[in-house]
Amino acid sequence: MTQRYKLVLEYSGTNYIGFQKQFDKTRKSIEEILEEAIFNFSQERTKIFASGRTDAGVHALGQVVHFDLEKKFLNYKVVMGLNNYMRNSEIVVLSCEAVDKNFHARFHAKMRYYRYRLFNRMAPLTLQKNQAWHLGGKIDVEKMKESAKFLLGCHDFSSFRDAECQASSPIRTIEEIKIEKNGDEILFEISAKSFLHHMVRNIVGTLVLVGLGRIKPEEMKIILEACDRTKSGPNAPACGLFFLKTEY
Amino acid sequence: MTQRYKLVLEYSGTNYIGFQKQFDKTRKSIEEILEEAIFNFSQERTKIFASGRTDAGVHALGQVVHFDLEKKFLNYKVVMGLNNYMRNSEIVVLSCEAVDKNFHARFHAKMRYYRYRLFNRMAPLTLQKNQAWHLGGKIDVEKMKESAKFLLGCHDFSSFRDAECQASSPIRTIEEIKIEKNGDEILFEISAKSFLHHMVRNIVGTLVLVGLGRIKPEEMKIILEACDRTKSGPNAPACGLFFLKTEY
Repeated sequence: MTQRYKLVLEYSGTNYIGFQKQFDKTRKSIEEILEEAIFNFSQERTKIFASGRTDAGVHALGQVVHFDLEKKFLNYKVVMGLNNYMRNSEIVVLSCEAVDKNFHARFHAKMRYYRYRLFNRMAPLTLQKNQAWHLGGKIDVEKMKESAKFLLGCHDFSSFRDAECQASSPIRTIEEIKIEKNGDEILFEISAKSFLHHMVRNIVGTLVLVGLGRIKPEEMKIILEACDRTKSGPNAPACGLFFLKTEY
Repeated sequence: MTQRYKLVLEYSGTNYIGFQKQFDKTRKSIEEILEEAIFNFSQERTKIFASGRTDAGVHALGQVVHFDLEKKFLNYKVVMGLNNYMRNSEIVVLSCEAVDKNFHARFHAKMRYYRYRLFNRMAPLTLQKNQAWHLGGKIDVEKMKESAKFLLGCHDFSSFRDAECQASSPIRTIEEIKIEKNGDEILFEISAKSFLHHMVRNIVGTLVLVGLGRIKPEEMKIILEACDRTKSGPNAPACGLFFLKTEY
């Protein structure tokens, strides 16, 4: 009988090619480093399933993964062991739980939460470099809030879907979009059961066009209904995106 | 007639030897990089006065400096010019103001604010690496709050003063100490008209001993009254300290 383990991970995505293994071998993936650490810790090769496969440069504060091992370990030993083998990486295990073999990190997710961080100021970033999008032009947060309302609920999100998206349906349900400003920092928090590829970044990129006054808040409805990626805004940079958590 | 300029700076202190120039030439100081940028921008050599001379590794979200130039520039040109010349550094000018020649960044400060950030968890840091103190042992925030009260007001702070401190008096007045916990992050915010050398970090180091249960909250009074640096706790690591702002 194998044992299934659920981990919560935090990582800085800056120096990685994304969660998933890629043909490009110039940069490593989160998955490869974690697999290697699991092997060094347990002497077992296993397959990892993630709640969300983040892109290159995207960070996580609470990515969830699961995998099976023949051996049984105490939870805290898994945390300490994997963190020891990953000590030269920018990935850590925050917690480990031995779970029922029916648990699935990807398919059992009830709600996923992403945060997008933007600094709206003249000066370049120092402390937040690689961990936020930097934009100089004046952004109107109230207009973005007004515009975000058109995206709430169940829609065909083809206008915010990357060409490489492999999902079988473009229909998704956005539960909430919170936008708040603290000084020159603007935070977007978006939750949904699941997202299309690049959906959060395409939505933020389009909201920012509204904030900059380049399109009107109500044009979001037209863009959404067009079901055409060429109608929406640019894909916001990966460095501002954080995978926050998954609820099961 | 020279013109005096007041700048607000943000910087990551990780790769610098501190604000002030040092004999050690292996790492640069914030002061040197700013002086060089001012020279490249204005072709003038000038002396910089800072509100607080942060140590190696200490960060700033709102350091204030002033200096004089023969030439007069529009404020935004100073910001853009200096940021351009400092583009390969981790220092930026957030704002510039042409001020009266009597303004003094150090001597006219009415209140200075520091923040100290700590992560209390098992897992090492990733995204906050070099920008917080990492401690694994369980820290009791309520006990630290109780203990911090003994430090409020006007006291002889010799117990929290570095041997190299050059201040003529060890008497200082702490206006407020706020301690708050959000998840595994603990933030300390301390304000005073002025501080002794290493005072904030020595206070945090001692409060953490209280939080860890190594000393009782009320022992802070005895430590304070001893006026003896050997009685207080360790100097908390520089990487967790942020110079927030100065009020004039």
